[in-house]
Amino acid sequence: MQVQYSNPVASITTDCVIFGFKENRLNVLLIKRAFDPEKDKWSLPGGFMEKEESLENCAQRILHKLTGVSDIYLEQFQVFSKIDRHPIDRVITAGFYALVNPEKYPLNPSWFASEAYWCEVDRMPSLAFDHQEIFEKALNKLKINVRIQPIGFELLSEKFTMKELQNLYEAILNRPLDRRNFRKKIKTLGILIELNEFKKGAHKDAMLYRFVPEAYKKLEEDGFAIIF
Amino acid sequence: MQVQYSNPVASITTDCVIFGFKENRLNVLLIKRAFDPEKDKWSLPGGFMEKEESLENCAQRILHKLTGVSDIYLEQFQVFSKIDRHPIDRVITAGFYALVNPEKYPLNPSWFASEAYWCEVDRMPSLAFDHQEIFEKALNKLKINVRIQPIGFELLSEKFTMKELQNLYEAILNRPLDRRNFRKKIKTLGILIELNEFKKGAHKDAMLYRFVPEAYKKLEEDGFAIIF
Repeated sequence: MQVQYSNPVASITTDCVIFGFKENRLNVLLIKRAFDPEKDKWSLPGGFMEKEESLENCAQRILHKLTGVSDIYLEQFQVFSKIDRHPIDRVITAGFYALVNPEKYPLNPSWFASEAYWCEVDRMPSLAFDHQEIFEKALNKLKINVRIQPIGFELLSEKFTMKELQNLYEAILNRPLDRRNFRKKIKTLGILIELNEFKKGAHKDAMLYRFVPEAYKKLEEDGFAIIF
Repeated sequence: MQVQYSNPVASITTDCVIFGFKENRLNVLLIKRAFDPEKDKWSLPGGFMEKEESLENCAQRILHKLTGVSDIYLEQFQVFSKIDRHPIDRVITAGFYALVNPEKYPLNPSWFASEAYWCEVDRMPSLAFDHQEIFEKALNKLKINVRIQPIGFELLSEKFTMKELQNLYEAILNRPLDRRNFRKKIKTLGILIELNEFKKGAHKDAMLYRFVPEAYKKLEEDGFAIIF
């Protein structure tokens, strides 16, 4: 029996939810669309997959063309395929996300983006298409993953205080964490070294820490599990 | 500026990795392909998305047509889009997975499947296309998720022994777990009631347990985090 196997019924796009941590707040990278449909609306950076590229390559290419950002480790989190999600055509989109330090990625909007900016996640404008939903799913994924992978630790300086690490977790989880409980659980992971140095200008408790590369690497491979 | 937005460059399929737990072993549902390409090879149940359906509906429809299995909660885990993953055409596939009790899902192969069977995961035949990779990614996802969601608990009888619960976790994680440590961690979750009944024919220690529905539901919503 022979089956027709070539049947492209929908266009395929990628959309990137790039989270940035700056000034103790979680941000997301948005562009202003310079094209129809949804011209002049804010949206996630995204666009069409070409025939000769994977979704991963597509996501990198389009992110770079729209915002100037490149060489980020992007992780797939979900495909969105409701039949009415695009106003004009049948389009399914693969969502990718990352968490970065915005200072390392200067923005340079071009191609079909008239603007690009880091938006605080609790001050979001209305977004094009179903991008609000895509954003929320990515944020949810990020909140789950900080409990099972050492995500985001590389956003801190080489030496950091426990308070700075806690700020990062609080920004991602969007809720205050108990200071004592946080310290205890982080220390249980066994990936920090106390440096016996202190942060200047901080109060006496602000011991500096750094990661133990080997322990950190092992944690990345094995995963972990922590409840806050 | 106007952009061409309709550009279907690839076909889209879904592939389902349906894990089944039976006789203390993890199994996966395979079909024998009755059609080209890869005719007579074993594969995951999958097929093409139609224009008027979402990926989720497509996965359910095709799983049912190929194997007779329906009404399973399927979870997306990854899209596979390498440009050479299909021997003839450009096809991207969305992977879905589930974990079920095979006794509840009698198999009824039809449509383009000549056979369907539950295969033990450590006795897998060679699979068509990149289905071995898709299977492995799904298994990896399952192993992560048993640590953060109450997945698979519904595979047990209403009353079960701690040993039976441990068997389930050991089958999924594919390694022995320390008995005492396992009991302690499971009890910490606060979702079990000791019934003060004992399993007949078992040794004196085989206390029966059941889940506390409210606590179990809360855990499903909040997630948890457990390390074995």
